[in-house]
Amino acid sequence: MLKFTKMQGIGNDYIYFDGIHQNVPMNKTFIQRISDRHYGIGSDGMIVILPSSHCDFKMRMFNLDGSEAKMCGNGIRCFSKFVYDHHLTDKTYLEIETLGGIKKVWLTLDNQEVTMVKVDMGKPILETKDIPCLFDKKTMINEAIEINGNIYHLTSLSMGNPHTVMFVDNLDFDIKKIGPFLEKHDMFPESVNTEFVQVVDRQHLKMRVWERGSGETKACGTGACACMYASYLLGLCDRDVFVDLLGGRLHITYEDGHIFMEGEAKRIFEGIINEEDFYV
Amino acid sequence: MLKFTKMQGIGNDYIYFDGIHQNVPMNKTFIQRISDRHYGIGSDGMIVILPSSHCDFKMRMFNLDGSEAKMCGNGIRCFSKFVYDHHLTDKTYLEIETLGGIKKVWLTLDNQEVTMVKVDMGKPILETKDIPCLFDKKTMINEAIEINGNIYHLTSLSMGNPHTVMFVDNLDFDIKKIGPFLEKHDMFPESVNTEFVQVVDRQHLKMRVWERGSGETKACGTGACACMYASYLLGLCDRDVFVDLLGGRLHITYEDGHIFMEGEAKRIFEGIINEEDFYV
Repeated sequence: MLKFTKMQGIGNDYIYFDGIHQNVPMNKTFIQRISDRHYGIGSDGMIVILPSSHCDFKMRMFNLDGSEAKMCGNGIRCFSKFVYDHHLTDKTYLEIETLGGIKKVWLTLDNQEVTMVKVDMGKPILETKDIPCLFDKKTMINEAIEINGNIYHLTSLSMGNPHTVMFVDNLDFDIKKIGPFLEKHDMFPESVNTEFVQVVDRQHLKMRVWERGSGETKACGTGACACMYASYLLGLCDRDVFVDLLGGRLHITYEDGHIFMEGEAKRIFEGIINEEDFYV
Repeated sequence: MLKFTKMQGIGNDYIYFDGIHQNVPMNKTFIQRISDRHYGIGSDGMIVILPSSHCDFKMRMFNLDGSEAKMCGNGIRCFSKFVYDHHLTDKTYLEIETLGGIKKVWLTLDNQEVTMVKVDMGKPILETKDIPCLFDKKTMINEAIEINGNIYHLTSLSMGNPHTVMFVDNLDFDIKKIGPFLEKHDMFPESVNTEFVQVVDRQHLKMRVWERGSGETKACGTGACACMYASYLLGLCDRDVFVDLLGGRLHITYEDGHIFMEGEAKRIFEGIINEEDFYV
């Protein structure tokens, strides 16, 4: 029998397993089966808490197809809540080893449970060759790009994964008509996540996101960071803003060259499975 | 804190609560919130086990919008597994009170757990006025009906809910082009569930179903019964057949004027929630 916790951060939901005190299977069949929303527990994927030789903990995360992912901003907030609420640590500042590097997090408590988590999301990268983005300038900041006969102004950057940001007057449009074009465009050899941003005021942005490989999603932590930094670069917002995504709100700040993301982390329920049910 | 079990029968998944030993909220907000697949437990709805004055147990079931449903063939099989596996009874024949009347079920055990459940689904009703179906004959058995310039041969009946059955050469077609037409047709004043049936041989049928209010679903227990009985009436199958739905297989028999349905019932996991998290 394996204990797990289902958690979500602004609508991004994963199955969390303590892999320190129990032996958690990490093969594709198991992950696909437990992630299935009708025949399994149902989730966007699986996250496992493991010991680390040089950090407080190690996070391994898997997409619902069973492939391993580098990092997930919404996932690491819930990971942090898990280790505190389950008494695996009593620290409120943690360093977590991920495939995307070491991540620093700060926990906010209420009644001895974690409610909010702030994450250092690192430095935004503007160099087109590092995004990667095939473009004849060193950066792509508010550049007019012609796609299918239309002109779009794009700002492209990497937050560890590639993003391109487009400003719109309002978010009530058919995202399926433009998202896939950029996702498959030759300009982005590793594909791209596209953020559509509406500037409400200098402390408030709204966005929708088209994620590479997934289509429109409720939330994308790195996307919210990319959206804030592109807006800041173009002088459209301050260093400290709220970003509203379909799934909820994130607080994004730019301090000392780094982007910080703060948002909710919620436990939905505690569960127990017979892991053998998910092997066949 | 409330204990629950997530269970599924051929892909139809519900959250099951023992309402005998704990006080289960049954308001719409709670049901909608726990059924949400990203922010809640995730399900097709909620089923509560209650005591009955004149049967072994009483089943109350709720759709994911919080409305109460009369009966669900896939749900009552899992209900039956729940009461046996959780030691609420040691009987393998049960009578269960539902809004759709008293239902009789027979349990098959393996290693002291229920694996298969057989349900008496009652008598099929052919009278058009009782389905209800607005048609100028007493029954609608293999009648040629013109819809949008096309001729379809339809057999209509009630299994407590209205069904119309259409035979097709193969199931690889665009169900969205025909399902909604029948669902909204004036001929069916309470709408209708449409089954598209491929006869493989006299002991084997395949079907897809378009459910009123839901569109295409993986499985519909009453639909499988309607599909078998229509095929039997037209001389296309025997009294004892397997019906393959997208979500899995059901064994349907016609005995002494009643339709019996037998199929799997599976536990996915056991869980516990803080019910207060789902009130706001």
